[in-house]
Amino acid sequence: MTVSPGATLQALRERKPLVHQITNYVVMNETANATLALGALPVMAHAREEVEEMTRLAGALVINIGTLSPHWVEAMLAAGKAANSAGVPVVLDPVGAGATTYRTETAKRILGDVKVAVLRGNAGEVATLVGLEAEVRGVESMGVGGEAGELARAAARNLGLVASVTGAVDHVSDGVRVLAVANGHELLGAVTGTGCMSSAITGCFLAVKKDAPLEAAAEALAAFGVAGEDAAPDAKGPGSFHVNLYDALAALDPATLAGRANIAER
Amino acid sequence: MTVSPGATLQALRERKPLVHQITNYVVMNETANATLALGALPVMAHAREEVEEMTRLAGALVINIGTLSPHWVEAMLAAGKAANSAGVPVVLDPVGAGATTYRTETAKRILGDVKVAVLRGNAGEVATLVGLEAEVRGVESMGVGGEAGELARAAARNLGLVASVTGAVDHVSDGVRVLAVANGHELLGAVTGTGCMSSAITGCFLAVKKDAPLEAAAEALAAFGVAGEDAAPDAKGPGSFHVNLYDALAALDPATLAGRANIAER
Amino acid sequence: MTVSPGATLQALRERKPLVHQITNYVVMNETANATLALGALPVMAHAREEVEEMTRLAGALVINIGTLSPHWVEAMLAAGKAANSAGVPVVLDPVGAGATTYRTETAKRILGDVKVAVLRGNAGEVATLVGLEAEVRGVESMGVGGEAGELARAAARNLGLVASVTGAVDHVSDGVRVLAVANGHELLGAVTGTGCMSSAITGCFLAVKKDAPLEAAAEALAAFGVAGEDAAPDAKGPGSFHVNLYDALAALDPATLAGRANIAER
Repeated sequence: MTVSPGATLQALRERKPLVHQITNYVVMNETANATLALGALPVMAHAREEVEEMTRLAGALVINIGTLSPHWVEAMLAAGKAANSAGVPVVLDPVGAGATTYRTETAKRILGDVKVAVLRGNAGEVATLVGLEAEVRGVESMGVGGEAGELARAAARNLGLVASVTGAVDHVSDGVRVLAVANGHELLGAVTGTGCMSSAITGCFLAVKKDAPLEAAAEALAAFGVAGEDAAPDAKGPGSFHVNLYDALAALDPATLAGRANIAER
Repeated sequence: MTVSPGATLQALRERKPLVHQITNYVVMNETANATLALGALPVMAHAREEVEEMTRLAGALVINIGTLSPHWVEAMLAAGKAANSAGVPVVLDPVGAGATTYRTETAKRILGDVKVAVLRGNAGEVATLVGLEAEVRGVESMGVGGEAGELARAAARNLGLVASVTGAVDHVSDGVRVLAVANGHELLGAVTGTGCMSSAITGCFLAVKKDAPLEAAAEALAAFGVAGEDAAPDAKGPGSFHVNLYDALAALDPATLAGRANIAER
Repeated sequence: MTVSPGATLQALRERKPLVHQITNYVVMNETANATLALGALPVMAHAREEVEEMTRLAGALVINIGTLSPHWVEAMLAAGKAANSAGVPVVLDPVGAGATTYRTETAKRILGDVKVAVLRGNAGEVATLVGLEAEVRGVESMGVGGEAGELARAAARNLGLVASVTGAVDHVSDGVRVLAVANGHELLGAVTGTGCMSSAITGCFLAVKKDAPLEAAAEALAAFGVAGEDAAPDAKGPGSFHVNLYDALAALDPATLAGRANIAER
């Protein structure tokens, strides 16, 4: 498979995949709106009573552990297993892994019980999950030893998935290849939940390109990054940038995206 | 009673009714802000320990099943019964009925145990609840057999309530009369939770016109639709439209609303 | 200690304290974004399994009872006690105390079990907690007998903390001194969660000035009020004001804040 963000976005707009998100309270509205602006259909459902049924209707499942509690963890595991059975690809966003034992252990438990297609996190979170040293403060990664591309490759290899490590430059790896994505804008770091949005958008791309999770994950980050670039010039700060970001996601043009996506093999 | 959206909005602004909302995590901030922008007072409370007391203080209760779980369902039922005892009108938004068994059964259970004044949903959700065929995908209605006005009438008759079926044109019926509301803008479909907002606003109108739920429900949709029309011209996409929508709700003028509301008897 | 909002904001921007917030579903995104825009790091975590560990990492803990339920109350108490043990200052926002017995009792229970540094509420909520007569409607304070400065002083004295009573003019007292803060804009009352944001920002200031909670609380309200003043001129209503507020918080300049903060000893 080759990297073709424009074609994937085009397919997404045509098929409008349903993306089931079990995510945190802080960003639910934001990831739903980002999904909808991009052109897919978000659905949020977290009850043990319905997650399996909902997941089977979906094109992708996104699990985000940003505001955990035991009932939610149960539902995440059940949904993840149902997704695996139904061939629905799973994205995991291990928000805050490394900050508390509960988050680290929950992320590891999900990785153990569910076949995750793409792990999307910052360097500190991903390093924690592969046993490398990391400094995580709250839900922010404060840095990590080693180079991000190598971290992505090691995580992919050790965990048997595609690792999507976001930062100033993003690195996505399947354990062999590493794709570096150099789109984005620093204001993305000034708005809560943009990491979570990038995971939701990874789910959107994966839903229409599930046989190529490496490419889908890199394309999703490029698309989100280009939207960030488009949102910045008229922004007066994080509030207006946040608003512009949804406008930019909706305005993303497949042909333009194809030209502006900055994805390079490392 | 006659349809008089301007006068109802005027009364709402003067009385500032408290509207108790037991709603989903995705849209809580949005429905609270829409309620406040319109001129009423939102309150969100979902604990079994306090819902009955809170509901008795309110001018209307809005129940929305968008992100269900068992404790919440219990609280919804308790609040609904307390509202019935206290003469507080109840709006039900059966988000995603038809998508999963849990949602369909919960909506039916609420309809069975609580006297609902207005059921506000899309065609797929309402059709599901009256046993008609519908295609629901996640929380989106993908279409429904039959004509929306007849669906509203049938739902009202079968369920013994006012059915408010939203779509490109909205149809509100008490089982005999059908009012068609032709206000709105297509960008309302590009923002998560605008259906939930329309239910919250239905609660606001009902709080000051509880003896005329048919008219209150139609007026609420006209008011929300006019705000949508006002929000659209300066919008660059769903993000800025969403922001403009609150500005437009706050700026809604009773006299202007009276002139622009497009409500017709079918 | 003297009042020095510019210096405190400067310190906050340099140290970027982690502010742990156990808050309500309605405003989580908003308080996180306000915290981040100001220059601190928000973290939301509410599970009994991790709150103590998270709190010990934080510079301040903000507890907000806006959407209560029993598991959350347990977590609030556990986090509050852990904060006390670790010397992490605690802010309590007793949203809706006075509206229902459950809220009033929970706020009192937290005040009984946890050493709270700053109680930030409106006049009705604070009056309820010191046994004075108040009229609270939903989560809105409809007025209170007596003068707000004296209410703050009485609350501070009776409860052994700094009372921060917000209104048209805010009053902050440690039981002896009373500081009146006259910054702000009426549009702050048109957006849901601005009271909760002021509590979050109180936590941010307290995190870098924990030995002077009276001054920190007053400075926080001045900073939030100045941001509100900056957000208003270009606002077309509550939606655009809300967006501008984050831009204004991020743009707050320590030197400008020092000059514009309107804090007076009463």
